[in-house]
Amino acid sequence: MNVRFYNARILTMAEGLRVRAGELWVRGSEIVHVGLEEDEEEPLSWDREIDVQGNLLMPGFKDAHTHSAMTFLRSYADDLPLKQWLEEKVFPMEALLSPEDIYELCRLAILEYLTSGITANFDMYLEPEAMARASVDCGFRTVICGAVNDFTQSVEKEEQYYRRYNHFHELISYRLGFHGEYTTSREILEGIASLAEKYKAPVYTHLAETEEEVKGCLERNRKTPAVYLDSLGMFTYGGGGFHCVHMTERDLRILKERGVWAVTNPASNLKLASGLAPLAEMDRRGIGLAIGTDGPASNNCLDMFREMFLATGLAKLREQDAAAMDADRILSMATVGGAGAMGLSACDILEPGKKADLIILDLHQPNMQPMNNITKNIVYSGSKQNVKLTMVNGRILYEEGSFYIGTEPEEIYEKANRIIRRLRQEKRSF
Amino acid sequence: MNVRFYNARILTMAEGLRVRAGELWVRGSEIVHVGLEEDEEEPLSWDREIDVQGNLLMPGFKDAHTHSAMTFLRSYADDLPLKQWLEEKVFPMEALLSPEDIYELCRLAILEYLTSGITANFDMYLEPEAMARASVDCGFRTVICGAVNDFTQSVEKEEQYYRRYNHFHELISYRLGFHGEYTTSREILEGIASLAEKYKAPVYTHLAETEEEVKGCLERNRKTPAVYLDSLGMFTYGGGGFHCVHMTERDLRILKERGVWAVTNPASNLKLASGLAPLAEMDRRGIGLAIGTDGPASNNCLDMFREMFLATGLAKLREQDAAAMDADRILSMATVGGAGAMGLSACDILEPGKKADLIILDLHQPNMQPMNNITKNIVYSGSKQNVKLTMVNGRILYEEGSFYIGTEPEEIYEKANRIIRRLRQEKRSF
Repeated sequence: MNVRFYNARILTMAEGLRVRAGELWVRGSEIVHVGLEEDEEEPLSWDREIDVQGNLLMPGFKDAHTHSAMTFLRSYADDLPLKQWLEEKVFPMEALLSPEDIYELCRLAILEYLTSGITANFDMYLEPEAMARASVDCGFRTVICGAVNDFTQSVEKEEQYYRRYNHFHELISYRLGFHGEYTTSREILEGIASLAEKYKAPVYTHLAETEEEVKGCLERNRKTPAVYLDSLGMFTYGGGGFHCVHMTERDLRILKERGVWAVTNPASNLKLASGLAPLAEMDRRGIGLAIGTDGPASNNCLDMFREMFLATGLAKLREQDAAAMDADRILSMATVGGAGAMGLSACDILEPGKKADLIILDLHQPNMQPMNNITKNIVYSGSKQNVKLTMVNGRILYEEGSFYIGTEPEEIYEKANRIIRRLRQEKRSF
Repeated sequence: MNVRFYNARILTMAEGLRVRAGELWVRGSEIVHVGLEEDEEEPLSWDREIDVQGNLLMPGFKDAHTHSAMTFLRSYADDLPLKQWLEEKVFPMEALLSPEDIYELCRLAILEYLTSGITANFDMYLEPEAMARASVDCGFRTVICGAVNDFTQSVEKEEQYYRRYNHFHELISYRLGFHGEYTTSREILEGIASLAEKYKAPVYTHLAETEEEVKGCLERNRKTPAVYLDSLGMFTYGGGGFHCVHMTERDLRILKERGVWAVTNPASNLKLASGLAPLAEMDRRGIGLAIGTDGPASNNCLDMFREMFLATGLAKLREQDAAAMDADRILSMATVGGAGAMGLSACDILEPGKKADLIILDLHQPNMQPMNNITKNIVYSGSKQNVKLTMVNGRILYEEGSFYIGTEPEEIYEKANRIIRRLRQEKRSF
């Protein structure tokens, strides 16, 4: 499809947070032109010309940490202490999921990503085949994160996955990863570190999410998780830590030195009472930062607008400084930062040669008025309600409240409801 | 207008958080029937019959603390320390506002309330005539809160306003109030307390929002704000405190004993780094609780979904307990609680004889699926995107993204932009 967006305000993210009027052309999956109308030459034959009506065209958000298939547990068990929630509610239900269930539940999550202007996710869960199929079938972009631990998958499988899902489809890639230090034996961790060495690849994991996790690691290894993992050579080629809430001075130095990204998950950290990540401190040190929703069982929604407000708000609270982590920095984390953390360098900004992963935000809404500052309006006042269009890899997947993913949403909702009903019954019959 | 809503899921809030299938009839401004379809008798002649399509009909949200006209400062000055923000940005601009400006800026806020399913606001600002006209012209419900302090208004004016705006229009009421202890002399405070005594009326004010406010009051009066105000007889007939972040044991006892409502404003408290209100502690003591957005200059949006998530999330963080302030309690605060704090006993729940202040939330959206628990989905996952319809006093003011307030939104946006441009120029020319 060749699509021309005209009469737009464009935030390319290539020149800071500058917004300018202009148009943008998409040919196939790529952006081929961004500029003022006068720049036009060799116009393509358009399949569609979209009048953006002065609204904002910008790069799609990148959800840099999630567990999509956990949609089935949304509001199934909330307002419970973490341990009880995991052991009584989450684990027994997850054990009952089939790959086909995971496929359907990922599709439900993809619908929601699209409503929030999210054009790619970094998804840690089981059954990469089902995850990859769900994304490819919907036209969505997914970076799958290895999820090995003592109970599921293995180093061998991780290597197979790594080789397979980096050559599966242009929408899919795969990064080495493991669930967390507290769920993974030293032997497996060493195996992953050798894979990192073998493929000169970054490694991603849950890192210092809770105080207990850090305490446990100190007891087991006499080191904090970051120090312990680094001592195994895990981060020789960089990688990322999800959450990074309880970090020591030395942990932070390791992230900086190894080029390890910190992916913050503020809504989940609030809802599970995990704590406040030292976001401003990490930013001051020049650690790469990105934002994730975490899974819908612990959030419970997949909404980058909520995460952005929380990321800045919680940083302000932690620093006791209303000037901490300004809105423009946060907007950059949610787009360019996410792309960096996920290794999606072709999807970060709007310029010729980049993938057409972009969104239109409706500025003709009361929450975006007056237009004192468009980018601050997005972070402090934006909502899913402002998302008019979401395009991934040159395909419009969501527009004016309708989905174009090859299936009716009602069919996906019905399947998700059927899955959770079945699982409840199976769980009872144990 | 006589309107029949059928094929609905109904959360009346009259019987806890129970949701049941049924229909609801509105005659004029009132609800006349709520029940199962079989209950139908003496059907009215309908002006409209609305198929709710299995979506949720529930009472509208009550924004129990706001400053609507501050929409003009949205994203005008953020990421600044509080003092600099107030003194350099807010005060000089506010001084330039005309009553006509306030009228237009209130209308902009009303548009946004409607998108968030808010059917009434508790609005503290200057120029009650402009505020009242804006709400009446739009068909919106407003409780105006007295805003007297050392610089604006007076005890005499407050009494005039109290008498005038409690008999102005069925959509408008007025409560005694003052800006805050730190901006109001003892003489004025005593004047307000006499009005409370004279009219046997509750009094509302900003209360213990920041640490500095409390410190300052201790220096001035050797008492915390709540203790000091109570010693003047301010809360003999109840009232409310906005924010209530920095509260002592004795302060909390006063709220409980005097029947003073605590209105929490979590987004504003985060963004201005004011602190975490002791919400769970106030709830355990049985203090009446409600939720407000605060003004759009400090929030920056007027979105009850964001406030609800923050209210529960920040309570969980403060208590270090994921079970604190569960979703159902929060949903009750945002509806019935707000109505209680604002004195809108006719607008709290859905039952015959109550005012038709109600909303429809779209459950056919990915963030509401699967339907493990509808009310928890609203609090943890809901968004403005889910608001299909907002009705105030029996009139549909917002439906499927369109506004029915007698003016085109674009006209209001343009006026708001013109106002801020003019004020910037006037400010420069000083």
